[in-house]
Amino acid sequence: VIGTGFMGLAHARAFQAVSTTFPVALRPGLRTMADLDAGRARTVAGQVGAERASDDWRAAIAGDDVDIVAITTPNGLHREMATAALEAGKAVFCEKPLAANLADAQAMAEAARTRAHANQVGFNYLANPAVIHAKRLIDRGDLGAIRNARLVFDEDYMADPTLPHSWRCRGDMAGAGALGDLGAHALSLALYLIGPVSEVTATARTPIDRRPTRDGGRAPVENEDIADALLVFTGGQTATFSSSRVALGRKCALRVEVFGSDGSLAFDQERFNELEVCFRGDDGPNGGFRRILTGPAHPPYGAFVPAAGAQIGFGDLKTIEVYRLLQAMAGRGPSYPDFAFGCAVDAVIDALLRSAAGGDWVKVDDTVKPPAPPSPDAEWAALPDARAHQ
Amino acid sequence: VIGTGFMGLAHARAFQAVSTTFPVALRPGLRTMADLDAGRARTVAGQVGAERASDDWRAAIAGDDVDIVAITTPNGLHREMATAALEAGKAVFCEKPLAANLADAQAMAEAARTRAHANQVGFNYLANPAVIHAKRLIDRGDLGAIRNARLVFDEDYMADPTLPHSWRCRGDMAGAGALGDLGAHALSLALYLIGPVSEVTATARTPIDRRPTRDGGRAPVENEDIADALLVFTGGQTATFSSSRVALGRKCALRVEVFGSDGSLAFDQERFNELEVCFRGDDGPNGGFRRILTGPAHPPYGAFVPAAGAQIGFGDLKTIEVYRLLQAMAGRGPSYPDFAFGCAVDAVIDALLRSAAGGDWVKVDDTVKPPAPPSPDAEWAALPDARAHQ
Amino acid sequence: VIGTGFMGLAHARAFQAVSTTFPVALRPGLRTMADLDAGRARTVAGQVGAERASDDWRAAIAGDDVDIVAITTPNGLHREMATAALEAGKAVFCEKPLAANLADAQAMAEAARTRAHANQVGFNYLANPAVIHAKRLIDRGDLGAIRNARLVFDEDYMADPTLPHSWRCRGDMAGAGALGDLGAHALSLALYLIGPVSEVTATARTPIDRRPTRDGGRAPVENEDIADALLVFTGGQTATFSSSRVALGRKCALRVEVFGSDGSLAFDQERFNELEVCFRGDDGPNGGFRRILTGPAHPPYGAFVPAAGAQIGFGDLKTIEVYRLLQAMAGRGPSYPDFAFGCAVDAVIDALLRSAAGGDWVKVDDTVKPPAPPSPDAEWAALPDARAHQ
Amino acid sequence: VIGTGFMGLAHARAFQAVSTTFPVALRPGLRTMADLDAGRARTVAGQVGAERASDDWRAAIAGDDVDIVAITTPNGLHREMATAALEAGKAVFCEKPLAANLADAQAMAEAARTRAHANQVGFNYLANPAVIHAKRLIDRGDLGAIRNARLVFDEDYMADPTLPHSWRCRGDMAGAGALGDLGAHALSLALYLIGPVSEVTATARTPIDRRPTRDGGRAPVENEDIADALLVFTGGQTATFSSSRVALGRKCALRVEVFGSDGSLAFDQERFNELEVCFRGDDGPNGGFRRILTGPAHPPYGAFVPAAGAQIGFGDLKTIEVYRLLQAMAGRGPSYPDFAFGCAVDAVIDALLRSAAGGDWVKVDDTVKPPAPPSPDAEWAALPDARAHQ
Repeated sequence: VIGTGFMGLAHARAFQAVSTTFPVALRPGLRTMADLDAGRARTVAGQVGAERASDDWRAAIAGDDVDIVAITTPNGLHREMATAALEAGKAVFCEKPLAANLADAQAMAEAARTRAHANQVGFNYLANPAVIHAKRLIDRGDLGAIRNARLVFDEDYMADPTLPHSWRCRGDMAGAGALGDLGAHALSLALYLIGPVSEVTATARTPIDRRPTRDGGRAPVENEDIADALLVFTGGQTATFSSSRVALGRKCALRVEVFGSDGSLAFDQERFNELEVCFRGDDGPNGGFRRILTGPAHPPYGAFVPAAGAQIGFGDLKTIEVYRLLQAMAGRGPSYPDFAFGCAVDAVIDALLRSAAGGDWVKVDDTVKPPAPPSPDAEWAALPDARAHQ
Repeated sequence: VIGTGFMGLAHARAFQAVSTTFPVALRPGLRTMADLDAGRARTVAGQVGAERASDDWRAAIAGDDVDIVAITTPNGLHREMATAALEAGKAVFCEKPLAANLADAQAMAEAARTRAHANQVGFNYLANPAVIHAKRLIDRGDLGAIRNARLVFDEDYMADPTLPHSWRCRGDMAGAGALGDLGAHALSLALYLIGPVSEVTATARTPIDRRPTRDGGRAPVENEDIADALLVFTGGQTATFSSSRVALGRKCALRVEVFGSDGSLAFDQERFNELEVCFRGDDGPNGGFRRILTGPAHPPYGAFVPAAGAQIGFGDLKTIEVYRLLQAMAGRGPSYPDFAFGCAVDAVIDALLRSAAGGDWVKVDDTVKPPAPPSPDAEWAALPDARAHQ
Repeated sequence: VIGTGFMGLAHARAFQAVSTTFPVALRPGLRTMADLDAGRARTVAGQVGAERASDDWRAAIAGDDVDIVAITTPNGLHREMATAALEAGKAVFCEKPLAANLADAQAMAEAARTRAHANQVGFNYLANPAVIHAKRLIDRGDLGAIRNARLVFDEDYMADPTLPHSWRCRGDMAGAGALGDLGAHALSLALYLIGPVSEVTATARTPIDRRPTRDGGRAPVENEDIADALLVFTGGQTATFSSSRVALGRKCALRVEVFGSDGSLAFDQERFNELEVCFRGDDGPNGGFRRILTGPAHPPYGAFVPAAGAQIGFGDLKTIEVYRLLQAMAGRGPSYPDFAFGCAVDAVIDALLRSAAGGDWVKVDDTVKPPAPPSPDAEWAALPDARAHQ
Repeated sequence: VIGTGFMGLAHARAFQAVSTTFPVALRPGLRTMADLDAGRARTVAGQVGAERASDDWRAAIAGDDVDIVAITTPNGLHREMATAALEAGKAVFCEKPLAANLADAQAMAEAARTRAHANQVGFNYLANPAVIHAKRLIDRGDLGAIRNARLVFDEDYMADPTLPHSWRCRGDMAGAGALGDLGAHALSLALYLIGPVSEVTATARTPIDRRPTRDGGRAPVENEDIADALLVFTGGQTATFSSSRVALGRKCALRVEVFGSDGSLAFDQERFNELEVCFRGDDGPNGGFRRILTGPAHPPYGAFVPAAGAQIGFGDLKTIEVYRLLQAMAGRGPSYPDFAFGCAVDAVIDALLRSAAGGDWVKVDDTVKPPAPPSPDAEWAALPDARAHQ
C-alpha cells in the first residue's frame, strides 16, 4: 500500500477484512506500507500490522511476495506508480480519479490493457449494494427505457476560505478540483448505470480563488470549486450534472436520479443503505416511491450482516472493492471498474474542462472504451450470505 | 374569470376567500364566469356563485362593474384576452406562462407597461411563505454571496403514453411543453431568488413523440417532454435546471437548492410548508440542515392559521396572489410578479428552446427587464396575523 | 358562529368556501358572529362578511334564519351553548373536545341523541383525505387483522415557561390539558381507524406547574402538560399513546402508526398530504414503505385541486367538515364525527385522568357508544372531483 | 468465541479490526471458534482465521492463551458459560440480553462483581457515535431537565407466520420475545441516556401463537411478539415504550425521542449516522430540528473515516464495543455496558413481563444497580481520529 493517509489505512483494513467477510480464493496478507515519511510509514505499518514499512515506493513494490499494489497517493503520482507496478507484474488497485489528466489516464489504461493484470480503480460507491440493485433494476428493464438522469455530488470540505492551500488546489497534483474529487464519483455512477457519455457542455468556477499558504501568503487555486454540466450519452439519454466542494452543509451528497419509461429511482449517498424506487405499476391510490432498505436481498450486503436496516459502512464498501479485485485475480470475474473505466471517467472530466474553458459542446474522447459493467445477478449469484451462518 | 377549468375555479375561490383572510382595501365580488361552452359557464357560475355566465369573453370583460379580468385559458389565447382587457382599463390576472411565445409576451408586457393597470401573472409558488422566507434570508445576506443553484420541476402527468393528444401538445396553443407548464415555475423562483438570467444552453427531447387522438389516430407532440439546461445569471451565478412532465412518481417536484458563501437552502414543493436551511455558523458537532416548518413567523402564513405545522394548501397560495393584486390596485404595493416578470420568464424559455434547437450557448433577450422583487420584510411587515384573533 | 378567535374565523371561512368547493344541497350564508366583546364581534363580522354581530350568544342563535350554530368557545362553555342550540332546533357544529368533563359530554350526547338534529364535533384531522385513505385500507382488509398502534400528538406551544396563565390551564374551562387539546385528536384517529377503547392506564405530569398571571403573580396550572398511556381496544388491539404540549420543536406532531397482519401504515400531521404504507406483498428486494402523496385518487382531495402533490391545507380540512355537516342536514349521509363520538373520546380522556390520578388500569365509561364510522368508499363515491373541471 | 452464527462472526471480525482502527494497548488474536457442530466450528475458524476450532466450549475457554471469552449463543446458555469463564479468570464479552431470566442475570452480575474481570454486554447500539453524542448533549445540559421520552424497537423478522419455530420462541432458551431481542436495546438506550427505571406497567401479546415445527406439526410460541409499556424513571421522567417483532416493513426501527426543558432529540437506528436535535434557542423564523450527520466531531466516528456523511456500519459498532472492552482490560476505562448494566436491563424486562402477566404497576428489582455511564467527553477525548492520518 503506497500512501498512509486515510485512504491508505482504508485499503489496509479492507485487505484484512476481506478474508473473514467473503469466500476468497486468495487470502491477502499485508506486506508493506510505503510513505515518503519513513517514520509515518513505520507508525502506520505497526498500526495495521503490516510486515514492513518503506519510504521508497519502488522498493516496496519490488518484493517477490508482493502481488498487489494499492496506490493512495495524490492523483498526479498515480501514472508513474501504476505503470511501474504493472510492468513489475503486479495487480494494481489505484484510487480515483485514475490520473490528474487524460493523457496520463490513457497511458495507464494502455499499460493495463497490454499487461492484462488485474487492475481496478477505487470508485467505492459502485460497490454499494443499493447502487448494484439500481443497476439490476435497469438491466432487467424494470424501469423501461432510460430517458434522463440527474447527477450531483456536493460536499463542503473546502467551503471554509481559511482552509490552507494544498495539493488538492494544484493542477499538476490533483488535476481537476471538485470534478476530480467528487464529480468523478457521480460520473462513475452515470457510466455504470446508463452507459458512455458522448458529448458535454459545462461551466466551472472557483469562487474561493486564493487560499492561505504556510508561509503566511496566499496562493491561487488552480482548479474549480463548482462545475455544472449537461451530458448526452451514446444511447441518447440526457442528464444534468453538477458538483461542488463548497456547498455548505452537504457532507456526502452524491445524488442520482434516473428516469425511465416504466419507473424512476433516486439515491443519496448520505443515506447509502437506501434506494427509492417508483414503478409505473405503482400508480393508483397506493402508489408512491418505495424506500427500500438494503439487506440480504441486495448482495453482497448479506456478507456483512444478515438483517436489512442494520446497515453497512464506508469501510465495508472498500472491502467489497478488494473482494472484486481478488475475484478478478482468481479468474472468477472481471476487474471492475478497471483502468479503462477510470480512463473513460477521466475523458468525461477532460471534456467538461475543455467545454468550460472554451464554451459550447465538446465530444468526449473515446479512444479508450469503458468495459461493459458486470451483470449484478451474474456477479453476485454465487455468494453465500451471512444468513447461512445464523 | 375567463376559463372554467380547474384554474378558473381556483381563481374564483381565491377572489372569494381573500376578503375573509386579508385586510383588503377592496372586497372583490364575482361578476362573470366565461367559457366557450355556455352550459359549462352557467354550471360553474352557479357553483361559485358568480352573478353572470357568458360564452363571449369580450362581452364578459366589457361590463362597467368589471374591474379585474382573470385569464385561465390555454396559453395561446392569453395575448388577445389580456391586451383587450388592459385596453378596456381593467386590471389583469393572467395565468402562467404569460404567453405561448416571446413575441406575444413582449407585446403583453408592453401593453401592461403603457397602461399601468395592475397586472399579475399566476406564478403561484412565489406566493409561498417558505419561498418568501428563502428570499428574506437571501436579501438579508444570511446565505452570503449566492454562488450557484439547482432548479428542477418534475411531474408525471404525461408519463402515460396512452394519454390523448391535447392543446398542451400543440406549439400554437401551449408554446413550450414541460418548460412552459412546469419549468416556468422553476424559472420564476430563479428570477425571484437570484436575479435575471443572461445566457443559457439546453437540450430538449420528446420521448413520447406521438399521442392518440379522438379519431383513433395519432398526432405528433410538438413540444418537449424533458428539458435540461445550464443557466448563467447576470450576477455571475450558475445553475443547472431541468424539467420533465414524464418523470414517473414525481407529482409536484419543484425543487430548488441555493448555495451561498455563508449558507445553503433547499426547498421541495411536494413539502411546501417546509424549508431546509444550513448556515455557516451551524458547523460543529450540532450542525446540519434545519427543517423549518413555516408558521406565523413567515408571513403571510399567519393570515390563514396561527400555528406552524398546521399547513396552508394550494388554494391558499392563490388567495395570497389575489391579495397582492388587490394591494397593487389599492396603491399599497407592487403588482408582483407582473407581466414584465412573466415576459422575462418567457425570454428564458425562448432562449432555452433556441439553444436546444441550434446548440450551444445563447443570450437571453433582455428587451423587457423584470422588476426588482419586493422586499419580504417591507411587503409583509404590516400584516396582522391570525394570532391576533386567538 | 360563537367565538371569534382563530377557530371562529376558520369556521366562518369554511362555511363560505364549502359551496364553491362541493356540490352542496344547501348553500350556507353567514348570519352572525357572536363574541362577549361586542367590538370584536363587529370587527370580525365585517371581516368575514357576516350579516350581524352580537355580544349575546343566546340572542344570536335565536334567529329564525339561523339553522346551524358553530361553537368555538373555551371547552367549559360548550355544554350550555350546545344544548341550548339543540333545544332551539339548530344543527350544531362544536369544536373539540366536546366538553371539559365527561358528565357534560354525556349530557350533550344525550341532548343530541334525543333531538336528532345534525351534530358534529370539530375533529378536523378526521377530514384529511390521507386519514380517510388509511381507513379505506383498513376497512378493505389490506392491512389484515389490526394488531397494535402508536399514537402521539406533540406540540410545543406551551414549552415557554414565561407564557402567561390562561383558560387553557384551568380545569373548569379547559378540562384536561395536553389530553384535551392535542390528545383528543390522536384518540379521534384511534377510534376512527381501530375502534372503541375499553381500558387504559396512564401517567400525567405538569413540569411547568405555575405560570405568570397578568397581575405579576403566578397561578397554578391545573391540568397536565404531558401524558403517557397504554390503551386496550374492545377488539383486543393494544396501543401506546402520548401527548405533550411542551415538546420543543414539535409543531403539529400528530403521529399514528398502525400495524396489521398484512401491512403497516404511518402518518404524521406535519406532512399531512402524505401517507406511508407497507404491504406484506412488498417484501422482496423492492419492498419498503411507499410514500403516498394524496391526490384525486383520495377523495375528497380532488374537490380542491386536481393534482397530487399540490396539497390541501388546514382550512380545507375545515371545509370538508362543514360539507359533512351539510350532507347530514340534507339527509345524504351521517353526521360524523357526532356528539356520541365526541363523548366517546372524552370518556377515554376521563379514564386516562382517573388512571393517572389513582394508578393502574381503569375501564372506559361506555355509556355512550360511538357510532360506526362511515365507509370511505360509500361516503365519497359520488363526489365529482376537480378533474372533471379541467 | 463461542457460537458461530452471525454474531459469532461479527465478534471475530471485530476482534480483528480493532487493532487497525484504534490505538489499542492490547492487540487481540483469534484463538478458538467453538460450536456444538464441530464441522461448522472448523469451517468458520478457517473463514475468520482463528487458530483453533472446538465443539467443546469448556475446553475452548480453558486455554492459557485465552484472555477473553465472547459468548454469542442463545440467551439461556449465557449464565453457565459466562460464570465459567469468569471463574477461569477470563474477561467476558457476552451478547445481549444478558440472560434468559432475571435470576440468571443477577447471578452473572454477582459473578462479575466479585471477580472484577472486564465484563461487557453486547448492546451494540450504545457504541453508536450518534447515541454517544445524544448522551453528551444531555450530560452537558443542552436539553435542560429531561422530562419524557419515547422508546420503540420494531422489526418484522417474525411477521411471516410460516417462519418455523425456533429457540427464539422458547422461554428457556430466549426468555422474553420481542422484549429480549429488540426491547432490550431500546431499554439500554433509556438507561444510558436517562437513568434507572423504577416502575413499569405493560401489556404483552403473541398474535402468532403457534409456529410450524420441522416434523410438520405446530408448537406454541412461549414469548411475546408485541409489548407496550409505560416507564417511570427514578429521576421522575416518564416514557412510553413498545417493541414488536411482527411490524411489517420495519427492519431496524429502534427509535428514541427525548424531550427536555431546553431541547429535544430524535434518533432512528434505520438511519443511525444521523441525529435530529432542536434547541430552545432554535425557535424563531429559522428554528427547526437539525439533521446532524455524524462525523469526526462525534468520536469515535473519526477512527473509521475522516468525513461526515461517509457513514459507519453495523460491524463498526461491534469494533467500538471491542475497543471499550480492551480499554477496560488495560485499565484505561470502564467496561461499559457491563454485567450490572445488563442485569438492570433484564430487571426492567422482568418487571414488564410481571406487569403484563398480572396487570398494573410493578416495581423494578433494583438489587443490582447499573453503573454510572462514562462521560462521552472523558471517554473519547484522547482518541486520535482518522483525520490525523490524512
